[in-house]
Amino acid sequence: MAIVIAALKEADGEHRVSLVPSVVKRLVKQGNKVLIEKGAGAKANFADQQYVDAGAQVVDRQAAIDQANIVTVVNRPDDETLGKLKADQMLLGLLSLSVDHDVAKKLADAKVTALSFELLPRTVSRAQTMDALSSQSSVSGYKAALVAADHFMRYFPMMITADGTAKPAKVLVLGTGVAGLQAIGTAKRLGAIVSGYDVRPASRGEVESLGAKFLTSSVSAAGKGGYARQLTKEEQQKQQDELAGFIADSDIVITTARVPGKKPPMLVTEKSVQNAKPGSIFIDIAASELGGNVAGSKPGEVVTTDNGAKIVGADNLPSELATSASEMYSKNIQAVIKALLDKDGNIKIDTTDDVMSELVATYQGKIISGRLRSQMGLPEIKKPEPQKNEEAAKPDAKAQK
Amino acid sequence: MAIVIAALKEADGEHRVSLVPSVVKRLVKQGNKVLIEKGAGAKANFADQQYVDAGAQVVDRQAAIDQANIVTVVNRPDDETLGKLKADQMLLGLLSLSVDHDVAKKLADAKVTALSFELLPRTVSRAQTMDALSSQSSVSGYKAALVAADHFMRYFPMMITADGTAKPAKVLVLGTGVAGLQAIGTAKRLGAIVSGYDVRPASRGEVESLGAKFLTSSVSAAGKGGYARQLTKEEQQKQQDELAGFIADSDIVITTARVPGKKPPMLVTEKSVQNAKPGSIFIDIAASELGGNVAGSKPGEVVTTDNGAKIVGADNLPSELATSASEMYSKNIQAVIKALLDKDGNIKIDTTDDVMSELVATYQGKIISGRLRSQMGLPEIKKPEPQKNEEAAKPDAKAQK
Repeated sequence: MAIVIAALKEADGEHRVSLVPSVVKRLVKQGNKVLIEKGAGAKANFADQQYVDAGAQVVDRQAAIDQANIVTVVNRPDDETLGKLKADQMLLGLLSLSVDHDVAKKLADAKVTALSFELLPRTVSRAQTMDALSSQSSVSGYKAALVAADHFMRYFPMMITADGTAKPAKVLVLGTGVAGLQAIGTAKRLGAIVSGYDVRPASRGEVESLGAKFLTSSVSAAGKGGYARQLTKEEQQKQQDELAGFIADSDIVITTARVPGKKPPMLVTEKSVQNAKPGSIFIDIAASELGGNVAGSKPGEVVTTDNGAKIVGADNLPSELATSASEMYSKNIQAVIKALLDKDGNIKIDTTDDVMSELVATYQGKIISGRLRSQMGLPEIKKPEPQKNEEAAKPDAKAQK
Repeated sequence: MAIVIAALKEADGEHRVSLVPSVVKRLVKQGNKVLIEKGAGAKANFADQQYVDAGAQVVDRQAAIDQANIVTVVNRPDDETLGKLKADQMLLGLLSLSVDHDVAKKLADAKVTALSFELLPRTVSRAQTMDALSSQSSVSGYKAALVAADHFMRYFPMMITADGTAKPAKVLVLGTGVAGLQAIGTAKRLGAIVSGYDVRPASRGEVESLGAKFLTSSVSAAGKGGYARQLTKEEQQKQQDELAGFIADSDIVITTARVPGKKPPMLVTEKSVQNAKPGSIFIDIAASELGGNVAGSKPGEVVTTDNGAKIVGADNLPSELATSASEMYSKNIQAVIKALLDKDGNIKIDTTDDVMSELVATYQGKIISGRLRSQMGLPEIKKPEPQKNEEAAKPDAKAQK
């Protein structure tokens, strides 16, 4: 039986699309049926005709939801659309269920199978090709450096001309995860003098390998799963005091310290912003409704301070590089679908698998994801012992689903 | 006697300023008095206090014009301000007098000494440090590549990730003068595959030295003074046909073919624009009220075509990099002032000098600049024979001004 996969059109402010024509082509070739909501790829420069050429059908939203086994999205759809999803239908995307537990409960109650990328266990190497948070962070880092260069009123590189020499820009990147490293690399490409700051001393090698200077704090914040842990107030204060010096010495500061589902740490204080030279640029990738890394940043806005600095609330940079971002995201979607289909092309969810036991937020009416259950205060699901052959041969095995 | 130099504040849309604090400091040190119109540097991130610290007085426009021997500007001021200039007062800037001959006549009638940068003979090596057109073109080229990267929805560099490889962007730069070469260099820095196209085969070496591919036409347009000459209609057609192929193979096209004071040549035709892939970007540095290099470009606007390409009418990129652009421009101003002052620090205009005989548009009631006179259909001024020592010793020599 052919699996039906449907990509929905995103909300107005989002330019990305969850499936691109090249991935559609591969999914169709594998025997699946693909539906694309009309105009879904337009803002990422993929025309409906390209999807048709790739073997998809272009339909309206209702038809997509009526027929799909798997509904793919970038961001979580509106409540009306969520309400239309049926039991056993699968929803896959950046659903932010670890932030909105109520939505997770509703999806569980409706027996929808929701897979939410922010729940993916990023340290399992098999999950790398599914890692949408990484792929989109990479886009964010590249774009952050470009946005900085575009707002900055001076050259990034050193310029030697008949009239003399112009100094290169000094760029400081706070947080050297995927986004930070990509921002460092891009700012280096443009010829700036770049420093990378991270509270995890282990980042030194990666930063230095890009030709940037590594700066760190005397406060260590190495945490679980490759993320920085939340710091105490005292630790934050000390870190900020040390940081203030580095920031004061920079023309451009790019902040990338997001903690999924939590309020981002304040790295650039109001005092640092006020002390900034006129023309300084702050790019806050962590800008969100919950706050950001830079005091006074507002998601989606460029704030000009009294002292002539600019704070860019860069909350959705991947949307601004929608074609590349969608291509990468779509490959992450493809990798998840591949992991969900058995050799006959049927959907098979193994909630005991170390990736799926985290990525699958809801299944058959229950909250499944270990991380989500822990956040919601639910008891851990005991992983069953691996079945032995004798057990599989029991008389009642056939009665099981 | 101290010379008084005054920098005016530019009109609203212009972020540059003609004098920056570091240049003011040097002019003051040399014994000149410098006046800055209040707020003149604000948009280029130079505060009034910085000018005061550099030794300037911050005044209003009327006080600046009342006292100044030399008035410096970026763009030509409004008619009201021009009307206030007095006999023997000097005006120095990008005055576009070769475009607006009527203004040149008015300035001559008012006996204002107007020096207009676009008249500078760019092939005289002594004029290099005064070459504002070059310094600002350099800024335009850098910024054009950045603006292209910012509008483009894909990566410039090749990206190798867990999910596969993203192809680098293909950038084509039309016109490989100062702006074009800087655009090529910046696009290369960002990791794009770059080609430089020029009708002057002599450009090959410069383009290839930047690691870009050189493309040219079978139509040669090498002209006087380092500029491309105007092509005939037939030549233009042939050039456009050849070009259309190169353009169709590019993601991004940056056009830089400005001919000072004339309608820019149409390099990207309507057909080429219509054939462009969705997401293609055209940056037209030559965009102006007279037209541009790209069909449908509008100065100061971003036009999205029906087929999803964007045409950026990048008519004033230096204003968007105002700090660096002003620093470079201000050094050009400084070099001209240096050439105008004799060893005692007094203004002395030698209209027989090979630079000043072109740069000086109007002097003592006459149109002086050779190029401007030729454009206006005025007879050539005969250069006097070099004075001999005997002549200088004549009794009436002292009576001369």
